[in-house]
Amino acid sequence: MPGQKPIKVALLGCGTVGTEVVRLLTDQAADLTARVGAPVELAGIAVRKPNKHREVPAELLTTDVDGLVESDVDVVVEVVGGIEPARTWLLKALHGGKSVVTANKALLAEHSGELFQAADSTGADLYFEAAVAGAIPLLRPLRESLAGDRITRVMGIVNGTTNFILSGMDSTGASYSETLEEATRLGYAEADPTADVDGFDAASKAAILASLAFHSRVTAADVHREGIASVSAADIAAAKGLGRTVKLLAICERVTSAGGESISVRVHPAMIPRTHPLAGVNGAFNAVFVEADAAGEMMFYGRGAGGAPTASAVLGDLVAVARNRVVSGRGPRESAYAALPVRPMGQAPTRYHISLDVADRPGVLSQVAAVFAEHDVSIAAVRQEGRVDDASLVIVTHAATDAALRSTVDKIGGLPVVREVVSVMRVEGEET
Amino acid sequence: MPGQKPIKVALLGCGTVGTEVVRLLTDQAADLTARVGAPVELAGIAVRKPNKHREVPAELLTTDVDGLVESDVDVVVEVVGGIEPARTWLLKALHGGKSVVTANKALLAEHSGELFQAADSTGADLYFEAAVAGAIPLLRPLRESLAGDRITRVMGIVNGTTNFILSGMDSTGASYSETLEEATRLGYAEADPTADVDGFDAASKAAILASLAFHSRVTAADVHREGIASVSAADIAAAKGLGRTVKLLAICERVTSAGGESISVRVHPAMIPRTHPLAGVNGAFNAVFVEADAAGEMMFYGRGAGGAPTASAVLGDLVAVARNRVVSGRGPRESAYAALPVRPMGQAPTRYHISLDVADRPGVLSQVAAVFAEHDVSIAAVRQEGRVDDASLVIVTHAATDAALRSTVDKIGGLPVVREVVSVMRVEGEET
Repeated sequence: MPGQKPIKVALLGCGTVGTEVVRLLTDQAADLTARVGAPVELAGIAVRKPNKHREVPAELLTTDVDGLVESDVDVVVEVVGGIEPARTWLLKALHGGKSVVTANKALLAEHSGELFQAADSTGADLYFEAAVAGAIPLLRPLRESLAGDRITRVMGIVNGTTNFILSGMDSTGASYSETLEEATRLGYAEADPTADVDGFDAASKAAILASLAFHSRVTAADVHREGIASVSAADIAAAKGLGRTVKLLAICERVTSAGGESISVRVHPAMIPRTHPLAGVNGAFNAVFVEADAAGEMMFYGRGAGGAPTASAVLGDLVAVARNRVVSGRGPRESAYAALPVRPMGQAPTRYHISLDVADRPGVLSQVAAVFAEHDVSIAAVRQEGRVDDASLVIVTHAATDAALRSTVDKIGGLPVVREVVSVMRVEGEET
Repeated sequence: MPGQKPIKVALLGCGTVGTEVVRLLTDQAADLTARVGAPVELAGIAVRKPNKHREVPAELLTTDVDGLVESDVDVVVEVVGGIEPARTWLLKALHGGKSVVTANKALLAEHSGELFQAADSTGADLYFEAAVAGAIPLLRPLRESLAGDRITRVMGIVNGTTNFILSGMDSTGASYSETLEEATRLGYAEADPTADVDGFDAASKAAILASLAFHSRVTAADVHREGIASVSAADIAAAKGLGRTVKLLAICERVTSAGGESISVRVHPAMIPRTHPLAGVNGAFNAVFVEADAAGEMMFYGRGAGGAPTASAVLGDLVAVARNRVVSGRGPRESAYAALPVRPMGQAPTRYHISLDVADRPGVLSQVAAVFAEHDVSIAAVRQEGRVDDASLVIVTHAATDAALRSTVDKIGGLPVVREVVSVMRVEGEET
C-alpha cells in the first residue's frame, strides 16, 4: 500500500514481551502492511533505562512516556504491567483518541470500566487478548465468536507456574515446597512467587473472563481466591487414588436460582477426572474449557506465557486496531449490560472430596453420614478401607453450597471418631 | 437501544441449522439487541416449501428468494448449502451492499475470491465461521487473532462422520464397511456418505483454512484428497501395534524450500501417536491443531456439526456484521496478498509407515532396505518379527517427498521376497 498513511505505534515497556513485539514488527513489516492495508510504524519505545536495551533501535528509545503518548501516534501498546502508572498512561492515550493494546491483566481486572469509558468517549479501541492465556486466542472468541450464544461456564488452567508445580507434584509425589523450589530453580517460578501461587494472577484473569462471558463488570476483588500453597502430597495421592488429578482452576459460572441469575467466579485447586480434557494439560501450558447453550463444549489450548507467545497475541490485536483505523471502523466496546451480581463463595454450588482417618469400629460411617445429612449435603460416593488400627474413609459429595460443605467438614473434624482430616478438596469437571 | 434503527436480516434456508438460527434470534432478542447496539430483526425466511416449516413464524416465510435478497435487508444469512443457486444469491446480496453470513463450505472453497471481490465493491462484510468446524471459533482466530504471527501449519479433524467411523474401527477392530453401516444406522453418516467418507467435505474445509492461514487463495481443486474407504482393519491394527491411531486429517503446511515458500494442502488418513492431542478427539467432535512461529502450538476443540453448534457460529458472525453496520465499520477483507503456490502432492514432504509380510529368510531386510536407499528415502525405525513360515516387517520412514515414498512402496511390493503389502499409511504429528 504505497502512499497509505502509516499507522504509528507507541510501545510502552520493552522487557521480554516488548522486545518480541519489536522483533515481530520489524521481521514481518511487509506482511503486516499487506494485512493491515497500511504500513505499521514503530514511533517510539518508552523505557526507564534506555542504555539497557541494546537489542532495539536506540533512536526509538525514550524515557518521556507522556510525551510519547501525547505525540501523533495512532496506537499505544502497553506491556509494562502493574496498575500505576500504566492506568494513567492508558487513560491519557484513550482520552487522546489513541487505540490501546495491552497485556495488563491486573489493570484490566481492576479498571476495565474506566478504561472502556475513556475509549468510548473518543471512539478508540481497547484490545487485550494477551492479558489472559498468552497466545491462545480466547478473549476474541468469547467477545465475538460466541456473541450470539449464551455462555454458561468458563473453566480453565490460566497460570503456568502453578500448573507446572501441580503437574510436578502429581508425577513425583513430592511436597509443595520441594516442587516450588525446583520450579524456581528452573525459572518456572519467580523469586517471589506470591502472585502465582496465591492465585492473584489467575484471579485477575478470571475477572476478565467472567466480564466477557457474562456481559457484566467483574473485578479481581469479586473473585474468591485460594492458592496452591496448602495443597499437600496427601491431597495429590488422594486424587490419584480416585482417578483424578489436582489443578488450580479459574472458574466462571452462570448460576440460575429462584432469585434470578448470578455469577460464581473463583480460583481454587480442585480435583478433576483424569479423563477430563483439562487433566492432560501439563507444565507451562494453559487451556480453557468453555460451555455455551448452543455451541456446547469447547476447549482452547496453547502456551499461556512467554515473550513470543504473548507478543503474538499483542500483534494480533495491533493488526485489528490498525485495520480499524484504516477503514474508520472500531472493534467491540464494553458489553456489561447484563450486570449480573456476583454470588458470595458461600453460596456457590460446588462438590467436596473429603478423606478422613477414622477409628476402625462399627458406627463410624453412620456418625459421619449423620453430619452430612444435618447440613443437607447429599453423599455421592463413599469408600472405606480398614488398616491395622484405624481406617480411611473417603467421601465425595453431590453439589451443595460451599458454606454447607465447609460447615460439614468443620463439624466432622471435631468428631471423636475422626483421627485426622487428611484431605479436603473441591471436585470439578464431572456430572453431579 | 430504543430508537436505534433495527438491523434487518434475511435468512436463506430453514433446515436443521436455519431453524436453530430462528430460535436463537427469538429467544435471545434482548441480549442480541444489547450486544449489537440495535435490535436484530428477522425480515424473511426463504424456503422452497413454506407449508413444511411449522416451527417458524408463517408470516416470515417466502419462496421468493430474489425478492427477499433485493429487499431493504442489511444482512443475508445463507444456510442452504451447495454451490448454486447459493452463489448467485450471495453475489446479488453483496453487490447490493448487504453483508453476508454463510455456513457454506463448498461455496467458499470454490468461489471465495469472487465473493470477496463482490463484498469489496460495496464495502459489505463476508463472514463464514460456521463453514469450518461448526461451533469451534477457529476462522476468527486464524483471520484475526493470529494476524500478527506467521502460521506454519494447520492440522485437524474437521469431519465428524469419518472421525466417528475411524474411532469405531479403532475401538472394535471391525472393518470399514461394518462400521460405516453402524454409523449410518445411528444417523452419524448420511444415506449417501460420499461427501464425508471420500474426503470432499474435509477438502473444502482444508481449502478455506489454507487460504486464511497462508494469505493465499486456495480452492478445493488444489487440495490432494484421499478418503477413508481404503482404511482396513489391518491398518488400524498396525497403528495400534505402534502406539498410534488413524485419523482423517486436513493438513495445511507452509513448505520452505530452495525455490521459495509454497503450501501443501491435503486430506488423507494418517497415523498419529496416541499421545498427540488430536488422538483423543473421538466420535463426532472436531479439533484443529495450529502452529505459528511466535504463538507456538495451539489446539481448538469442540462440536464440529449439528444444528445448534452451527447456529451458534452463525449468530456470532451475525452479531459481528450487525455491530459493523451500527458503527459503520467493517470486518477483515480477503487477505490473499501472499499468493503462495500450492505444491503438488508428489512434492509434499511426508512420512510413511509400511507393514509387510515377507519370507522369513536371511537377506530380506537388506533387499528391502536397498529399495529405500535407491529412492533416497531414509528409514527411521524397523521392526521385524518371525512367525511360522513368514515374517512381518514394519518400517517407518523419515520425511521424504510423497512421490519418492510412493515409488519405493511400488517397487517393494514387486520384490519376490515380499508376500504382501499389509498396510501403507502416512505418519503425522511427530518429530521427524
